[in-house]
Order: sequence, then structure tokens, then C-alpha cells
Amino acid sequence: MALYVQKYGGTSVGSVDRIDAVAEKIKRFKEQGHDIVVVVSAMSGETNRLIGLAKEIQPGAQSPREMDVLVSTGEQVTIALLCMALEKRCVPARSYTGGQVKIVTDSSHTKARIQDIEVSSMQQDLAEGRVIVVAGFQGVDPDGNITTLGRGGSDTTGVALAAALKADECQIYTDVDGVYTTDPRVVEGAQRLDVITFEEMLEMASLGSKVLQIRAVEFAGKYKVPLRVLHSFQEGPGTLITIEDDSAVEKPIISGIAFNRDEAKLTVMGVPDVPGVASKILGPVSRANIEVDVIVQNVAADNTTDFTFTVHRNDYEATEQVLNQVATELGAREVVGDNKIAKVSIVGVGMRSHAGVASKMFDALADENINIQMISTSEIKVSVVIAEKYLELAVRALHSAFDLDANDSVSE
Amino acid sequence: MALYVQKYGGTSVGSVDRIDAVAEKIKRFKEQGHDIVVVVSAMSGETNRLIGLAKEIQPGAQSPREMDVLVSTGEQVTIALLCMALEKRCVPARSYTGGQVKIVTDSSHTKARIQDIEVSSMQQDLAEGRVIVVAGFQGVDPDGNITTLGRGGSDTTGVALAAALKADECQIYTDVDGVYTTDPRVVEGAQRLDVITFEEMLEMASLGSKVLQIRAVEFAGKYKVPLRVLHSFQEGPGTLITIEDDSAVEKPIISGIAFNRDEAKLTVMGVPDVPGVASKILGPVSRANIEVDVIVQNVAADNTTDFTFTVHRNDYEATEQVLNQVATELGAREVVGDNKIAKVSIVGVGMRSHAGVASKMFDALADENINIQMISTSEIKVSVVIAEKYLELAVRALHSAFDLDANDSVSE
Repeated sequence: MALYVQKYGGTSVGSVDRIDAVAEKIKRFKEQGHDIVVVVSAMSGETNRLIGLAKEIQPGAQSPREMDVLVSTGEQVTIALLCMALEKRCVPARSYTGGQVKIVTDSSHTKARIQDIEVSSMQQDLAEGRVIVVAGFQGVDPDGNITTLGRGGSDTTGVALAAALKADECQIYTDVDGVYTTDPRVVEGAQRLDVITFEEMLEMASLGSKVLQIRAVEFAGKYKVPLRVLHSFQEGPGTLITIEDDSAVEKPIISGIAFNRDEAKLTVMGVPDVPGVASKILGPVSRANIEVDVIVQNVAADNTTDFTFTVHRNDYEATEQVLNQVATELGAREVVGDNKIAKVSIVGVGMRSHAGVASKMFDALADENINIQMISTSEIKVSVVIAEKYLELAVRALHSAFDLDANDSVSE
Repeated sequence: MALYVQKYGGTSVGSVDRIDAVAEKIKRFKEQGHDIVVVVSAMSGETNRLIGLAKEIQPGAQSPREMDVLVSTGEQVTIALLCMALEKRCVPARSYTGGQVKIVTDSSHTKARIQDIEVSSMQQDLAEGRVIVVAGFQGVDPDGNITTLGRGGSDTTGVALAAALKADECQIYTDVDGVYTTDPRVVEGAQRLDVITFEEMLEMASLGSKVLQIRAVEFAGKYKVPLRVLHSFQEGPGTLITIEDDSAVEKPIISGIAFNRDEAKLTVMGVPDVPGVASKILGPVSRANIEVDVIVQNVAADNTTDFTFTVHRNDYEATEQVLNQVATELGAREVVGDNKIAKVSIVGVGMRSHAGVASKMFDALADENINIQMISTSEIKVSVVIAEKYLELAVRALHSAFDLDANDSVSE
């Protein structure tokens, strides 16, 4: 007898047949005596279809308020259809748009943030035995304007509802059966994790494990909502994302290997080593709306320094132009860049209490003759930038070095 | 400097190009200094697509509440796209769903009736120079559930908004350029009417001139909202539907010839002529959800009577079954029917003050050797039922007899 908030993404409700399958699944949960609140996305393809219409009508910048009015219809269609599929199975259900809940957000159209959720109406429906089906990704601002939370916002809706309703678990149904130690397409022995902490998941997500939206994980961590990633149409326990359990002394040092090949590296060489140089370089980059990831500044030699950072690969040329201008103004020697790089990271809360994790990583890479171009560390993560061509080799070497391979865990 | 409520139907907003054309048209009205409130339908085909999805998910009876949640998305898409098209033209605009206005209805899902409209927010937008774009066909009940007004309800939304905002005119843009004396496909000389009264329009509409929804005309008549039918993409004055102007002494006796070939006729022969027979016959028909149109009971002879009425042709077989049962119970002689009939009506407020209109009609039909099977009259209408094969002949003969032909009006 638990209260579950279940989120089904666009692929899981992408056709009439799939909506029927989801309804069947929900029916079984109800039969087990659970209370169910469902959050759904638009049927796959629908949001893009609507955005396409908008771009045809208003090329360039679309009116943000009207974009939200437009795209929010996608989820509204799904909630109605899913309720019909439930009622066909004699499962009482009621649909709610974001505004009907109501999920109050700020007025930042197309990227609104949730401020408050009214739960009384939903609680009454739950008490009367109804399944509640809520349109993900949308809300209303205090003036009643329709808002959306931005791409992937349905995960956030699910977590926010689970927090507001004090649900036992927020279950994110998707097209993978959990979070893996690394990408199974790169490492054959990659294993599904039973449990991962919010912090680890954040590092994994931001590094390219696109299972969950970062905002949803942050939200879940903040409100301590247990979050579970499961496959929509396969049985299995999935991966539970939860707060750190201090009692788990046997927890592996490293939970997973994340990687990202979407980055490019730029270096301003021979920058005068005076205070304020970093902001003089990154200020113009930021003003050009370019996001910076890893930043490394080498120790100064002969009163100059080399300043290196990575950006998204799509921003490589734009960043180069900005830097050439900056380099001239600063009297720097030159700007060099490389867009054939990859970032590989080891992630795990266990490394806090274990010295030598970083050196073990560097050793494993050295054993494969992989040169490390940049290093960046945080409390639960060590990232290195290497040449892109070594990416798969590096991931496999690290996966094995940290005993994450399926074979290893069986043999030990 | 007038306030116009303009309604554009599904065909008028059926594509991105057409939405652009509508926006261009609205821009011109704004440039002339008018205040504009626009009501739009779903893009043509969209409502049927959504209903198709619902029927796939839930064959048989769909949940009415969820149907309204589903189909109301159609208009919501259009309001957003039209606002974008207006903003692209630097015409400030704001979209409103039925719930945002808010248009409060009763809770009869899929066929709700409007109870109240809040105007303060719209009035403020108008004062600030914005075009208001409202989703037609939809509202919310007092509990915030989404409702729809039923097919064609966008006309009703337009009229209701015009009444609430005290607009100078409610303009219904459609794919015809006005109301005609009769169907131009049947009578070449059919003429567009400049003016028609609400009562005449009601009789014309209910008889098959599908230019306007009956409910909208009733609503406009009740609140004395001047209603104008115009072509969406052709210039022209259209037809003004208004209250009767007593000063127009030269008004023609007959405004138009309406007809309908969707009916079938059934007669219960030899019914005992005792009180209560009519309800004994029509009660079971009504309980079978069959709507009855013209009813005629012949004068009794030898203590029995013949009872005749018309139904929609689709209900012919069902009605026949009901009547066979009833005839047995009543001891009637037999049930005979004919589904190859048509109804032709002359309509005009002028006939109130002119004797001989009916006989002129009967003469004109007799001249063409057309036998009249049933006659039914109201204050401003005379209807006859004839064999379907004579329909076109009858309409042309009457159009000419009542001087409605374009040539006649020029020569006189």
C-alpha cells in the first residue's frame, strides 16, 4: 500500500498501443492496492510537430508565451487518452492539466520553475480511489498564463508531485532498464546499478548519461524523494536513486564511468600572469552565451600563463573568434584549439574516503599509453580530457581497473 | 472605431498560410482603428484526428470529460499560432483558452451551455491595444473542468463574447460570402441577401442552410447582437443578420427558399381517433432518441385517423420498427413509409402581413404538377413535403414565383 508517482515519457506513450500497455501496467499497480499518480509527456514526435508549425508561422524568435500555449497541448492530449484507456479497463481515472492541479510556476515562459503545487484536489481523488493523470512539463504562473518547464520537464513534474504528495517513490519509466556503470555500447561488461546516490547521478547525468534530467535529480535530492528509473515495458527493479546511506561501508569506491564527446578545448597561450586575467578571458565568452565546462590554468612560468577551457563542440568556432579578439587585447601569444577531444570521468561518493583513486585512474590510462591533456576534480568525481580517438579504450580500461566489469564482480 | 468580434472557422485557419492570411486581415482592421476580438476553431481536420485517436483507445462510448480535455487542444493550437502570426506583424496579441477568459459553462461535457463570461481581463487587454484571440467551442465548468459546446460551438463562443463585451458586430468569417435566397447550386439566379432577420435565419438554418449554427443565431437574437456572415478571403459586405426593422415596408414577402433532403416520412394508418393517440405514437419514438420534424394528423374519418411525421433519413428503419410495435398495441391498420421525400420551405417575416402567400406557393407547385404530400406552417414559414425527385424543380419554381431571381430583381 504505497503512493507512487509514475512518469512515462514520450516514447512510452508514443502510440495508441503503447498508451494501452501503460494503462494495463497501471491497472496492475492499482490491483496491488497502491495509489497511483501518473505524469505523462506528449506522444513522441508531437512536441516537435507543434514547434515546427510555430517556426513556420514565426521564423526567428517565437513568442514565448504563445509557444507555451501551443506545446502544452501535447501533454493535454496524452492525459485524456490515457484516462480513456484506464476507464476502458474500469480503472477510475481523472486527468489534470498543469493549470488544473494547479502547478504554480514563475513567469519564465519556456523555462519556468515550479513554485507551488496545490494538492487538495488530487488528495481527494486519491481518497476516492481514482488514478490521477497529470500533464507533465507544464504549469501556470500566478496570473493564470500557461507556462512550460522546458525540455525534459516532465521528470521535474513527477519529482515535484512526489515531493508535494509525500509519495513513497517517484518512478521514471523510460526506454532503459536503469542506470549503468557506463554506456553498455562501449563496455560490454557494463552493469546496471541497483542503487546510486543523487550526487553521483548528478555527475553521471551532467556527463552524458541521458537517463534523467539534471533538474529532476536536483529536485529529488533537495526534497529527499526516492527516485527510481525503470523500463516502461520490461520487468525489473531498475535503479534507485537515493540519499547516501552511511551504513553501506562496502559500497564500491567508484559507481560509474561517464564520458562526453561533445566538447572542444581552447587554450590562450602566453597570457600575462596578472590578477583578473581569467575574467578578462571568460567574460567575453560568457557574454557570447557560450557555456564553459572544464577550466584549467597552468602554473605561471616567465610571468606568462596558459589558460585552457572546454566548451560544447558546436561553439568551437564562435569561441575561437571571441578568443582571438581577447588575445590581442591582452597581449597574449596565441590561441590554439582542439575539437577532437573527449572527457572521461570516474564518479563515486566512495572516493571521498579513499586516497589514491585519482592516481589509480592516471595509472590505468598510462598503462594504455593514453596522454592526459587536462585534469579536473570534484569531491566525488575526477575528469580527464584526452584525445577523442582513445575514448573507448580509456572507458574500458577504467571500467576494468575499478572492478566494475560484470565478470569481475562474479569472480570476486 | 468599433469593437468587432470576428470568428474564423476551421477552413479559414486550416493551414499556416491561411493563418497568415487571417492575421493580415486582422492587421488591416486594427490599422483602421477598430478593437478586435478573434474567435478561432481548430485547424480543419484536427478535431477529427483527435476524435479518431479517442475512438481507437476507447471504442464505443468515450469518457465525456476526457473527450473535452482532448478536443479542446485543437483550438488551443490555433490561438497560439494566430497570435504568433500577429506578433510577427507587430500587432500585439494575446491568446485565451476558454478557461482563461473565463467562459463558465454548465457541466454537460461535449454539449455544455455558456452561463457566464468574465470580461475584465479582455477589456484591459483591449484598452492596452491588444488583439484578443480566444479559443472557440470551449469553456470551464464551475469546478474548473474543461467543457466543450459541441460541434459548431465556435459560432456560439463568438456571439456570447460579442454580447458580453457589447461589441458593435459579431462577424462570422466562413467559406461563403453570405446567406442566399436559396442554394446557388440548385437555382442559378440565387441572390445574396444584404439583410435577414434572426427569425428568418433560424428557419433557414434549421432547414439546411448550414452557414451558421442555430444556437449561435438564437443566442444573437436573444441578446440582440448584430451578426454578419462574410467570406474569409474575399471582400464583400456579406449578410447582416439583425432584428426586424419595422420601417422597411418595402421588405420582400419571402426572403428565401430552404430545403432539406435528409428526411423520411412515416404514416400510421387507421389509428383509433381517441385522445392521447399522438403521445402513444411519439412517446416510444422519442424514447428511442429519434428526433421528429414535421407532424401532421389528418382529420378523422370513420373513427380512425392517419398520423404522419418525418424523421432524419438515417432513423428511417429504426422508426419503422418502433411504429410496427406501436401499431399492434394501438390496433392501427398498418405503417407505411417513404424515404424518397424532400422538404421545401418558403421563409420570410413579410408573410405575416400578407395573405395568400401559402396559396401562391401551392399554385406555383401545382403549375409544375408537383403533388404536395404534407403541409406545415409557422408564422414566418410554410413547408411542404414532396417527392424527392421534384426537389430542384420545386425550388426553382418557388424562387421564381416569389421574384427572388437575380434577373427579376434587375428588371423590376
